[in-house]
Amino acid sequence: MEFEISNRMSTLRGSAIREIFKYAADPEVISLAGGNPAPELFPAKELAEIANEMLTKQPVLSLQYGVTEGYVPLREKVKERLKITENIGKENDDVLILSGGQQGLDLSTKLLVNEGDTVIVEEPSFIGALNAFRAYGAHLAGVPMDNDGMNIEALERVIAENKNVKVIYTIPTFQNPMGTTMSLEKRKALYEVAKKNHIIIIEDNPYGELTFDGTKTPTIKSMDDEGIVIYCGSFSKILAPGLRLGFMCADKAITAKATIAKQVTDVHTPMITQLMAYEFLCRHNIDDLILKMRANYAHKCATMLDAMEKYFPKGVEYTRPGGGLFIWCDLGNGIDTLALSKKAIEKKVVYVPGNTFMIDMDKPCSALRLNYSTMSDERIIEGIKRLGEIFTEAIK
Amino acid sequence: MEFEISNRMSTLRGSAIREIFKYAADPEVISLAGGNPAPELFPAKELAEIANEMLTKQPVLSLQYGVTEGYVPLREKVKERLKITENIGKENDDVLILSGGQQGLDLSTKLLVNEGDTVIVEEPSFIGALNAFRAYGAHLAGVPMDNDGMNIEALERVIAENKNVKVIYTIPTFQNPMGTTMSLEKRKALYEVAKKNHIIIIEDNPYGELTFDGTKTPTIKSMDDEGIVIYCGSFSKILAPGLRLGFMCADKAITAKATIAKQVTDVHTPMITQLMAYEFLCRHNIDDLILKMRANYAHKCATMLDAMEKYFPKGVEYTRPGGGLFIWCDLGNGIDTLALSKKAIEKKVVYVPGNTFMIDMDKPCSALRLNYSTMSDERIIEGIKRLGEIFTEAIK
Repeated sequence: MEFEISNRMSTLRGSAIREIFKYAADPEVISLAGGNPAPELFPAKELAEIANEMLTKQPVLSLQYGVTEGYVPLREKVKERLKITENIGKENDDVLILSGGQQGLDLSTKLLVNEGDTVIVEEPSFIGALNAFRAYGAHLAGVPMDNDGMNIEALERVIAENKNVKVIYTIPTFQNPMGTTMSLEKRKALYEVAKKNHIIIIEDNPYGELTFDGTKTPTIKSMDDEGIVIYCGSFSKILAPGLRLGFMCADKAITAKATIAKQVTDVHTPMITQLMAYEFLCRHNIDDLILKMRANYAHKCATMLDAMEKYFPKGVEYTRPGGGLFIWCDLGNGIDTLALSKKAIEKKVVYVPGNTFMIDMDKPCSALRLNYSTMSDERIIEGIKRLGEIFTEAIK
Repeated sequence: MEFEISNRMSTLRGSAIREIFKYAADPEVISLAGGNPAPELFPAKELAEIANEMLTKQPVLSLQYGVTEGYVPLREKVKERLKITENIGKENDDVLILSGGQQGLDLSTKLLVNEGDTVIVEEPSFIGALNAFRAYGAHLAGVPMDNDGMNIEALERVIAENKNVKVIYTIPTFQNPMGTTMSLEKRKALYEVAKKNHIIIIEDNPYGELTFDGTKTPTIKSMDDEGIVIYCGSFSKILAPGLRLGFMCADKAITAKATIAKQVTDVHTPMITQLMAYEFLCRHNIDDLILKMRANYAHKCATMLDAMEKYFPKGVEYTRPGGGLFIWCDLGNGIDTLALSKKAIEKKVVYVPGNTFMIDMDKPCSALRLNYSTMSDERIIEGIKRLGEIFTEAIK
């Protein structure tokens, strides 16, 4: 039988990115496309011990239904850590444990955004977020990015020009896909603009801990005296993404409703993954692990930037991230990086074309996203070399 | 700041059930309210061994990002098992691994139901399903239940009377909350009615394996030549609910779109829980475990029915389930079981008042749901005895 898809889901389509990731699964292919953390840093041995012990000694806690808000000791631990690492946590804030950071975007939209309401996003932005908003029929309005984050004048213009603006979505630190970080001045300005216009900010910060030199810009949530910021965090990039474990910190008025939204969505996050994260935080020093990740990614990022300097044609512009997983690269010259990706695939290299991160994905885009966290140094250099040949040929 | 909640979520409210479950957490309280499987049957030792081994020997598989559709060997195993145990699986069917059975309801609604569209439900029905539909702004229309399932004439009338009916939701086997099973004739009739009217059926079957005497009525999905049935299954009642692991079997046209819906919701289900289920199915005989569960629940159900026979006032009607976890009990006499639950709480017994399972929760209801899977025999008998006193007093 033919069936009719809902309006909200008909705005989504199977993305070109899925096709690209199919090629990326081929071990011969050099994938600069994904956002996978370096697997050699997963604390697998420690997590194996914990899982074994919990299931053996606490079988009912590990396997019976849990509460929707999350395992209470883990919620407390996350609260403590947010206070220390990000100065987050006002009196009225609460923490919910989520089934990955993506769920924070899904539940926030479910809770706040009617069909046709406007969600303001950085452009370019994380495709998973754009699609989470699209899947509730949100109208997306983009704000162009400067190298130090959203253009605030453009933001004010977009707010004025759009009806029912409910949410501003930002990844202020080591942005996906750009790798850039919003300045403190802009964070303050963004907060003031949102407050003045009664708009909720979703601050998505999966990469904040991955600062190469330890420098941190204060989170927007740390300034949140009004309870207007929903802070979404994740264990994916500091522990392991396959656990699908994230959290939300927001005003209690929001977390109380988000709990109901979560209950009807997946009841609660699995107990064993919550226990693995909680016990890991208790028994081991996660900051040591994070230091290793920072060093690893800083090195790989430098390797990629050096190779880009050597092999990419002159005039190609790219960001120089202070952390995170991605470099954004603009070839200019009216080049369509989606069309060009086919040539890269022929040479067994994949990247994500820039149009993927735009509201209008049909418009050709001369930029692309490169990831440095997944491949070895040798493969990063070889991949950039091959791309350099393709780009030189295309720009000629 | 005051914030405005979305229309879809404003139809949901923090339920009275949450209050009841707060009391149920008190170890002194006899809880006949929940739907928790018997924890003594969790195969914790086996799962501990598997988790330990997987994390140790397959750390990258266990901890890196996985694909949205689910771990391929687990999908194949579920397909195999569905064919054997339920005769499910036509050429065009596919299986997705989900983060619990609840997610099947969430994703199906996201995919198929526009705000204001009608979802037809059995009345009474599972509150988690009703709320999943409400959370997408669905209009709910109820069909009264006979002892052998939905009243089919009423179903046809409800279809005729409502606009944009997109989904019929049913728990045909050991229904929650009634414990009753839809007859084969009615299953066939329901399928024909849905087919004629171009309506998708969601067949929710979390309890089907828990048949006391081994008797099974064919699933509606097993008759599905047209690809109109979305079958939702779960590991919660046959392995452990804290794993939050379920699956959906549906026509490929539906699973392809549901995959996109899942990707924007939680990316994928955790790898370690999927691996635990897959390896358990490979290494151990889950049917042996299910046989133990059947015997355990059959015994506890009989214990509860015997106690009800002994202690409940004459004239009180209740179902006699052939499996599953619940007995539905109607006190009649214009009694409001929500109001009466306060007296039960005073005597440290909790049940779920029937109004919870209705579309209009504000209307007083003389029925209630009793669960027999969680408490010991002694506590079941003591709980029923105390309820008997309260009910006798109320009816007097």
